[in-house]
Amino acid sequence: SRSIRLAVIPGDGIGREVVAQGLKVLTAVLPQDVKLETKEYDLGARRWHATGETLPDAELESLKQHDAILLGAIGDPSVPSGVLERGLLLKLRFAFDHYVNLRPSKLFPNTSTPLAGRPEIDFVVVREGTEGPYTGNGGSLRTGTPAEVATEVSLNTAYGVERVVRDAYERANARPRKKLTLVHKNNVLVYAGHMWKNIFDKVGQEYPEVTTDYLHVDAATIFFVTQPERFDVIVTDNLFGDILTDLAAAVTGGIGLAASGNINPTGAFPSMFEPVHGSAPDIAGTGKADPTATVLSVALLLRHLGYAPQAARVEEAVAADLQSRGDAPRSTDETGDALAARVAG
Amino acid sequence: SRSIRLAVIPGDGIGREVVAQGLKVLTAVLPQDVKLETKEYDLGARRWHATGETLPDAELESLKQHDAILLGAIGDPSVPSGVLERGLLLKLRFAFDHYVNLRPSKLFPNTSTPLAGRPEIDFVVVREGTEGPYTGNGGSLRTGTPAEVATEVSLNTAYGVERVVRDAYERANARPRKKLTLVHKNNVLVYAGHMWKNIFDKVGQEYPEVTTDYLHVDAATIFFVTQPERFDVIVTDNLFGDILTDLAAAVTGGIGLAASGNINPTGAFPSMFEPVHGSAPDIAGTGKADPTATVLSVALLLRHLGYAPQAARVEEAVAADLQSRGDAPRSTDETGDALAARVAG
Ligand SMILES: CC(C)[C@H](C(=O)O)[C@@H](O)C(=O)O
Ligand SMILES: CC(C)[C@H](C(=O)O)[C@@H](O)C(=O)O
Repeated sequence: SRSIRLAVIPGDGIGREVVAQGLKVLTAVLPQDVKLETKEYDLGARRWHATGETLPDAELESLKQHDAILLGAIGDPSVPSGVLERGLLLKLRFAFDHYVNLRPSKLFPNTSTPLAGRPEIDFVVVREGTEGPYTGNGGSLRTGTPAEVATEVSLNTAYGVERVVRDAYERANARPRKKLTLVHKNNVLVYAGHMWKNIFDKVGQEYPEVTTDYLHVDAATIFFVTQPERFDVIVTDNLFGDILTDLAAAVTGGIGLAASGNINPTGAFPSMFEPVHGSAPDIAGTGKADPTATVLSVALLLRHLGYAPQAARVEEAVAADLQSRGDAPRSTDETGDALAARVAG
Repeated sequence: SRSIRLAVIPGDGIGREVVAQGLKVLTAVLPQDVKLETKEYDLGARRWHATGETLPDAELESLKQHDAILLGAIGDPSVPSGVLERGLLLKLRFAFDHYVNLRPSKLFPNTSTPLAGRPEIDFVVVREGTEGPYTGNGGSLRTGTPAEVATEVSLNTAYGVERVVRDAYERANARPRKKLTLVHKNNVLVYAGHMWKNIFDKVGQEYPEVTTDYLHVDAATIFFVTQPERFDVIVTDNLFGDILTDLAAAVTGGIGLAASGNINPTGAFPSMFEPVHGSAPDIAGTGKADPTATVLSVALLLRHLGYAPQAARVEEAVAADLQSRGDAPRSTDETGDALAARVAG
């Protein structure tokens, strides 16, 4: 009989509430013979306040012993900006070599979008997850004085770019439209930008059926709001991917629906699945948080672990649930129950 | 009697057509006693193809002898990406220390926006223009091989950040809403981000009437489409400003209306005014280009040179022209004529 060893990091704010719903749906959708073993990790703002720790080595080691990680949200205004992001969230992405940061964007029926005319939106951003301006390489000199100098170094390797570009071609090739757009800023960031473009063109020769396109990041934001239907798969750098996927979430019904997977396609380390939204401390504990992004992240988790039919069931349940939602507000728990009932039914 | 010595760089594609309309309106609005002397510079793709030159030192020196520069657009697909951007456009911004890259965004009546519900939009982005990831600092090793490594270094100085932040506070303080938002990514780019935030807070103590706010760049893109009315003045880094102002243009009627000023507030060097759009080679010569962004850039130029009433007349003419536009297409020249007639009238 099969089993899934799942590490769970509820984290801060609404993290715990939404993760509970994700687990509810996961349990409901899994075949009877699959044993789900979860282990919860107490990481985030509370832990840092109590012990000063963000992610101790022992816990990093322990996390490795799992098939996947489900994460709620990390961050709280009481913690200085960057401490938990760099010390926990990004540390996990880098330590587990999550080089494919997968972020699908789909405008579901009956959801609100700020865009007039409701364009058809169904694309996926393959964001590089282990390089670029996110490496933490940089520093500051004479900090806090009028003579301060601060640097941020974007590090990019052919090794790192090629593997994520190849992953994106594979995904594009498997989709009906077979279109891949590279987004960078190679007219200004000429060193990294040209390397990305050259590798993109080179790998593209192996995928003759994939139509390719290149856009500067500034121009890409324009098309996200004027013509989002033109996108199928997008591959881009870590920082551009961060920016574009929040914008993508905004135009497809909001950050409450945006799922993500931090994936290590080699399987060398567990992949991690998390909603794109943050910990939203203002609504934590009120039952107002929409767990849908976490549930959709569970779908990505299922697909990654080889449970494609179950992943599809979860996604269909979300679509059906959104379709049937009325105006009456529903609690986090009620939404979780509704989704669990659909996938079980 | 007064005079304006204006350097004109028509540039590539539609650059020449739109600049001609800008000059038409400028001539029409200037008081009779102001002598306008223009000198045209042949820079851009044609020149590079013919001579290999982007911006020779002699021309840079000659440009310095002017009160301001009006630029159309630079760039052509026949020139490798980065050559004209780095060798001409950015060279000008850096050589003339254009540290305030000013980009107003206003949703004029009767213009189309991709946003449903037509929010009120009237903000200005103060984009840093001489630092950050735009310095050209970086390199690549083992270029073109599977072992390539490429870097891009974002350079930031307290000197550079403080002067642009101060300029932004001044602008916010002079506006009715008096609100200033800093956009950065200080939870990831902790060195540069914390320096920006510290300087932003410190300078803010001198402007007790200005309400301040901080947003990560990814979150800012969300608000640009869901709640753009929340912004008044935004101050941000060179690259984030590049991305945000294209998005701002998209939500306020398109890149055809977006003006910009590359400003050296000290007056040590001439400031440069240009539409945000590119050279649009696909429509060059067809008379389809909308010169409005260039005309609005002329308004920024006028205000910078101390002709505030004339600047306001140009802006009012644009608003009135947009208000009265029908569905019939109008040529570049006709739009220029219509605007010139309005400001003269
Ligand atoms: C919290 C932050 C470090 C993170 C990022 O920048 O990647 C978040 O914005 C995201 O998109 O997952
Ligand atoms: C053409 C390019 C170098 C430029 C920039 O990145 O600044 C443009 O996008 C702009 O916004 O003026």
